[in-house]
Amino acid sequence: MTDSKPKVLLAYSGGLDTSVILKWLSEKGYDVVAFCANVGQHEEDFSAIQAKAVSCGASKCIVSDLRKDFVDNYVFEAIKTNAIYEGRYLLGTSIARPCIAKEMIRIANEEGCSYIAHGATGKGNDQVRFEMCCQALSPTIQCVAPWRDAEFIESFKGRSDLLAYCTKHSIPVDAKPKANYSIDENLFHTSYESGMLEDAMCGPDESMFKMTTSPKTAPDAGEIVEIEFVQGIPTKITNKTDGTEITDSLELFLYCNKIAGKHGVGRIDIVENRFVGIKSRGVYETPGGTLLRAAHMDLEGITMDREVKRITEGLSAEFARLCYNGFWFAPEMELIRHSITFSQRDVTGLVKLELYKGNVTVMGRSSPKALYNADLASMDQEGGGEAFDYNPADANGFIRINAVRLKTYAALRAKDA
Amino acid sequence: MTDSKPKVLLAYSGGLDTSVILKWLSEKGYDVVAFCANVGQHEEDFSAIQAKAVSCGASKCIVSDLRKDFVDNYVFEAIKTNAIYEGRYLLGTSIARPCIAKEMIRIANEEGCSYIAHGATGKGNDQVRFEMCCQALSPTIQCVAPWRDAEFIESFKGRSDLLAYCTKHSIPVDAKPKANYSIDENLFHTSYESGMLEDAMCGPDESMFKMTTSPKTAPDAGEIVEIEFVQGIPTKITNKTDGTEITDSLELFLYCNKIAGKHGVGRIDIVENRFVGIKSRGVYETPGGTLLRAAHMDLEGITMDREVKRITEGLSAEFARLCYNGFWFAPEMELIRHSITFSQRDVTGLVKLELYKGNVTVMGRSSPKALYNADLASMDQEGGGEAFDYNPADANGFIRINAVRLKTYAALRAKDA
Amino acid sequence: MTDSKPKVLLAYSGGLDTSVILKWLSEKGYDVVAFCANVGQHEEDFSAIQAKAVSCGASKCIVSDLRKDFVDNYVFEAIKTNAIYEGRYLLGTSIARPCIAKEMIRIANEEGCSYIAHGATGKGNDQVRFEMCCQALSPTIQCVAPWRDAEFIESFKGRSDLLAYCTKHSIPVDAKPKANYSIDENLFHTSYESGMLEDAMCGPDESMFKMTTSPKTAPDAGEIVEIEFVQGIPTKITNKTDGTEITDSLELFLYCNKIAGKHGVGRIDIVENRFVGIKSRGVYETPGGTLLRAAHMDLEGITMDREVKRITEGLSAEFARLCYNGFWFAPEMELIRHSITFSQRDVTGLVKLELYKGNVTVMGRSSPKALYNADLASMDQEGGGEAFDYNPADANGFIRINAVRLKTYAALRAKDA
Amino acid sequence: MTDSKPKVLLAYSGGLDTSVILKWLSEKGYDVVAFCANVGQHEEDFSAIQAKAVSCGASKCIVSDLRKDFVDNYVFEAIKTNAIYEGRYLLGTSIARPCIAKEMIRIANEEGCSYIAHGATGKGNDQVRFEMCCQALSPTIQCVAPWRDAEFIESFKGRSDLLAYCTKHSIPVDAKPKANYSIDENLFHTSYESGMLEDAMCGPDESMFKMTTSPKTAPDAGEIVEIEFVQGIPTKITNKTDGTEITDSLELFLYCNKIAGKHGVGRIDIVENRFVGIKSRGVYETPGGTLLRAAHMDLEGITMDREVKRITEGLSAEFARLCYNGFWFAPEMELIRHSITFSQRDVTGLVKLELYKGNVTVMGRSSPKALYNADLASMDQEGGGEAFDYNPADANGFIRINAVRLKTYAALRAKDA
Repeated sequence: MTDSKPKVLLAYSGGLDTSVILKWLSEKGYDVVAFCANVGQHEEDFSAIQAKAVSCGASKCIVSDLRKDFVDNYVFEAIKTNAIYEGRYLLGTSIARPCIAKEMIRIANEEGCSYIAHGATGKGNDQVRFEMCCQALSPTIQCVAPWRDAEFIESFKGRSDLLAYCTKHSIPVDAKPKANYSIDENLFHTSYESGMLEDAMCGPDESMFKMTTSPKTAPDAGEIVEIEFVQGIPTKITNKTDGTEITDSLELFLYCNKIAGKHGVGRIDIVENRFVGIKSRGVYETPGGTLLRAAHMDLEGITMDREVKRITEGLSAEFARLCYNGFWFAPEMELIRHSITFSQRDVTGLVKLELYKGNVTVMGRSSPKALYNADLASMDQEGGGEAFDYNPADANGFIRINAVRLKTYAALRAKDA
Repeated sequence: MTDSKPKVLLAYSGGLDTSVILKWLSEKGYDVVAFCANVGQHEEDFSAIQAKAVSCGASKCIVSDLRKDFVDNYVFEAIKTNAIYEGRYLLGTSIARPCIAKEMIRIANEEGCSYIAHGATGKGNDQVRFEMCCQALSPTIQCVAPWRDAEFIESFKGRSDLLAYCTKHSIPVDAKPKANYSIDENLFHTSYESGMLEDAMCGPDESMFKMTTSPKTAPDAGEIVEIEFVQGIPTKITNKTDGTEITDSLELFLYCNKIAGKHGVGRIDIVENRFVGIKSRGVYETPGGTLLRAAHMDLEGITMDREVKRITEGLSAEFARLCYNGFWFAPEMELIRHSITFSQRDVTGLVKLELYKGNVTVMGRSSPKALYNADLASMDQEGGGEAFDYNPADANGFIRINAVRLKTYAALRAKDA
Repeated sequence: MTDSKPKVLLAYSGGLDTSVILKWLSEKGYDVVAFCANVGQHEEDFSAIQAKAVSCGASKCIVSDLRKDFVDNYVFEAIKTNAIYEGRYLLGTSIARPCIAKEMIRIANEEGCSYIAHGATGKGNDQVRFEMCCQALSPTIQCVAPWRDAEFIESFKGRSDLLAYCTKHSIPVDAKPKANYSIDENLFHTSYESGMLEDAMCGPDESMFKMTTSPKTAPDAGEIVEIEFVQGIPTKITNKTDGTEITDSLELFLYCNKIAGKHGVGRIDIVENRFVGIKSRGVYETPGGTLLRAAHMDLEGITMDREVKRITEGLSAEFARLCYNGFWFAPEMELIRHSITFSQRDVTGLVKLELYKGNVTVMGRSSPKALYNADLASMDQEGGGEAFDYNPADANGFIRINAVRLKTYAALRAKDA
Repeated sequence: MTDSKPKVLLAYSGGLDTSVILKWLSEKGYDVVAFCANVGQHEEDFSAIQAKAVSCGASKCIVSDLRKDFVDNYVFEAIKTNAIYEGRYLLGTSIARPCIAKEMIRIANEEGCSYIAHGATGKGNDQVRFEMCCQALSPTIQCVAPWRDAEFIESFKGRSDLLAYCTKHSIPVDAKPKANYSIDENLFHTSYESGMLEDAMCGPDESMFKMTTSPKTAPDAGEIVEIEFVQGIPTKITNKTDGTEITDSLELFLYCNKIAGKHGVGRIDIVENRFVGIKSRGVYETPGGTLLRAAHMDLEGITMDREVKRITEGLSAEFARLCYNGFWFAPEMELIRHSITFSQRDVTGLVKLELYKGNVTVMGRSSPKALYNADLASMDQEGGGEAFDYNPADANGFIRINAVRLKTYAALRAKDA
């Protein structure tokens, strides 16, 4: 260490933990630059956060509006891939980490910070995602994680120690009592975990949800939307009930959230597997993402070849695991994203869906690139029109040849009996 | 052919097509034994079917009640595997075929039939499933598929030809006009395809559904059920609202249908890929299966190791494809089913769910075999109780070692830039 | 059929079967255009073949030299993918079929042929590969396969019937007696099957091999070669023993055959699984391909990330199956080839190998794109030089976190005991 | 720590590193029990090791002969699975670790040791394998890894520090100068890495190999063996040249080593990917394993269904990664091993192979459980004998139906053009 202070860029939320961390790092001799990512958190006051950061000792506080980047390069990538972790989780927190990490590395380089710090706990996924992304983007960056630091942990054994530290250092504390669960928010989703939710039999409180109405209090009338995609990317949403049309990617996604949230779409409650080997219970709401994923999968149904679908289903599962585990900037992720993009060449068209009290119901779909051919599909017709004829008699040989090895095996088993 | 007539066992439904086929086979010189499987079709009158079969020329008509076998050995196998085809279809028709085929082979052996006939079309999946299963179980059986027979197809170009044939041969015809779609029914699901549904933009008629109320007309009050599993198999359902408890497998499944159907659960509308290479549009309702699958997946969440889950997800996708394509009795299916069964050793416990207007919402789960450990999961505690300590500081090394190859790769990429 | 004869393009080898087929098609009223692909068969006299075709009744006989296309677009694609079927077969016949089919479709279009015919048997893979490729490239083309035609099969029950037909129609017959096995040849490999080889315990005759010396009679001195690749494609071979250097792709590949064949490299004897469900015994020699595949895999070892390798291993197995089964021009193959090409971005460098009596021994490798880092690998050093430090203490946390779920599982199992 | 010393079980080899570690642990206040596993190391003098351990301060030194256990439960499991890491490495070191770890946990429990120590470095795979296995078997065991201990590393920066420590503490040192590479030995293989081998272009010295003759100095006459398997497990080897027959599993495996080693079989030189994210160069010799794996794969060729093979190929790759990475006792490994065992039900029969100067050449195979059927395979016959007929005409429909989606796709692509 030279005579100048080491410079650290802290991912700062304005909350209790990261405020304490900011001050603590400052006390430890770091020049702390605070950073706050706007990834679309609900009702966030970024000016207040900036002011608070400086009051806690930050030399400056940078706020970056990453919402458009987040939608274009992360959310829509996940939609394009139909990404879902363990069959249920839409990766709302996971995909925000690389977006934030990338901006932090950009700023760290600009500001000359050789350290990056965060307030993620030592048992969770986010520490991994955050640091893996940072290290992949900047191999020499050093990561500071106070919640894994023995001295810090020893000093702050509970919430009361944090509050006492705030009092001592005149750090303002939010008047509201702490919720009995923790929250992560961005425009893609809100997640709830810990606290009362650690009891896997205890359901979520209706009051916690921020993005979705309960299906039970959602409107009694459904609404119909049409969503258009070009090569797997949403390009337009039309509300067939009121005529609203939106094409800008960020606006489109926010509108998906609004309309799907209004109709109670996208809540889940699961026990999932963290990368650190711990099972974890989480409650999530992902309204717009749930709507777009349903639409996208449906469009693949008419435009994507069966075997391409089979292969991309495997890649999608890999994508989800890699994303969940923090490998967004890994070489294998590059390969998978490249492959998925290629698979989307013909995923162009529109899907019509109804939203109603928690349900997303596909009502129809069409595409100029459809491999679906009503004439070919028809049970009533022999041919398939256009380029070729389908001859039902061919199915005879198809079945008989497919059965050859089954019959050989059956003959072997019969010998055993 | 000896002087005795060749004997054929015909899968007979009592409908127009198979009645014509029965008579046609009889005219062709076959001794036709009709067979009708009771796999839980809605409001079916099996005595009437038997009478009609004989009136059409069958030497006898055998009805087998396969409902219990179907639930125990097919439906619950699919639930145990979380089987879903192309991410959406629960395989309701697919899993009934092997059950029916197995019984037909049993009867064919008993009755001395060396032929088996069916009324499936030459463009669909069912001909494949049916014949593949039959040939796997009895390599010497011969299959007769009139809808792939050039002469039959030539004779019956449309519905009017079939009706004319009925008139000519005094075959009674159902008075109701034909629905503008085709139906397949069993206790697991009802499917709708063809006709008006060939237009992929045309939604289903509300009137067609048999097992589910529309979410829109479903009760305004939800109902809560608890479902218990032992080693992946449902063993008990309890309605927490009215106290109903059911443990018999068939009764349990029928109750799942009733309660989920009442609340509008389990409808889908998709374009899927048939094994014969044609894309096909189908509408399905699978109320009980949707409920049980949601419960089972959730229970796996707390009882199944992450990597076992990852591997069985791959096996589940294979199972679904094999089942869909007619390979139920294939050697690879034996392997997969054997592996899945092993994976379910600890999938024992209960899941609590609410049913409400199309939604199945998991509310909680518990298991004596849980790998979920609230103490270990807790962000507030260092250790994990019992057998071992979790030390947050370990995550440091975990992250840094996982990042080694990412940093090596980043260094290579940096050289390119 | 109009008054003009239907025109068929026949894949013609000049051998007994296709000569009979040519005449037979001609007798059946076809205008037969013969086609002979030069894919590097051993000692083939193409002028003689052309003359014979015309003498058998062909309206013309076109010979296309496809050797360069075959090497550049098929052989090197397989090498790039490390393609191997069922762990052993290098796909020598499989990859030639799409190359030939593509040319035939080009010629069929040029010549106005609406039919394509071939002499492949009805039990083998080649009929499938050939026709699948043709139909994928030209959906309206009609395929004629006399060995699946009931009348043809009835007419030619054995070799004597073929010979009698030749006599009758003055078709010249090769004086040599037929070998007791069948052969397929191209510059990538020679395959031997059928006849005496149908006895799975009967080894191949030393006399049959065309491209390789027996390891037992190969030179007593090994030879060392260096092979250079750019992005997965071989670009240069240098014989370190005699200084030969070759860079042209076709010449390079032929030299690989020559040098590896001289040293007895690349023979295998296997029982494999045909696409039609039959197990088949084959003996193959693939000298150059065996050498290049060994070199390419080794180069991937130092240049390809571990997880990219894992994913491409899966894609490679798919590629092999698809290629073997005739799906070269399928949409899923496009996806796989596209993905593999992306994965090869850094597979640039050289590999040094020794050839000696059947052995290909890698002796060393180097690459400007190496992810291998001797300093990082070294057990004697802490760091990894350059961009980052490797700290052995990190392994502690890495191991402990990876063991978390194992310990949780062990605790569950202990409860059972 | 109570007044009694903490008790540690040290994996002791008698070499320089573990002798220093033994003394160092003893100096640190541990009661050290030394443990030496006999897994078939070449020319090891276990009595001398025991004496040396005690002279270095061990309270006792236990030697366990694990050779039979190693062959029966690890080596033959790997053979049964065709396990190979990254397409080339036969996992010789990897599969010994769980065998040793299991015995150590047994002894630790017996001796009351709550610590286990080893001399593996902090950059390698073995530390991971060893500790993961120990922790999976005994969640409360504590691992001590001096080569990851900052104080230890600081004290012993190079070989000279180790030697000086030996001198100071009167620890006898082997007179031979250290080889310029490191070795790991067991009856399955010998591995060489580090030192001069860190230069990826530098080939191995002929002098280093212990189990194999060079192909160049191997006998000029080959030898023929027949190997019999029952359900995937080798049960007998017969030398057809000299009549030797062996059935005991350990003796059989040692004989495979002897005969394959004599003929120069089983050497490889690769760059592989360690679990800690580092690429590593290794040279291996695995004579008996190479022979048995070739035989086993070949036998699967005639006895295993194609699709079972496809699925088990995937499981085999997983098995290899899990084994390599130290997950032998993980729940997913239980699942995979269980599945593989099921897949081997019919892998019974014999394979005949010739060994000659580095080559293992399969010459033939037979099985009472063969799915290979020469009549069915024969190109000259229509049927397949016995249970069913193969009709070449069926291939027509098989091909045409398989081409349906290719033609649909081609029609779409044609629209683009």
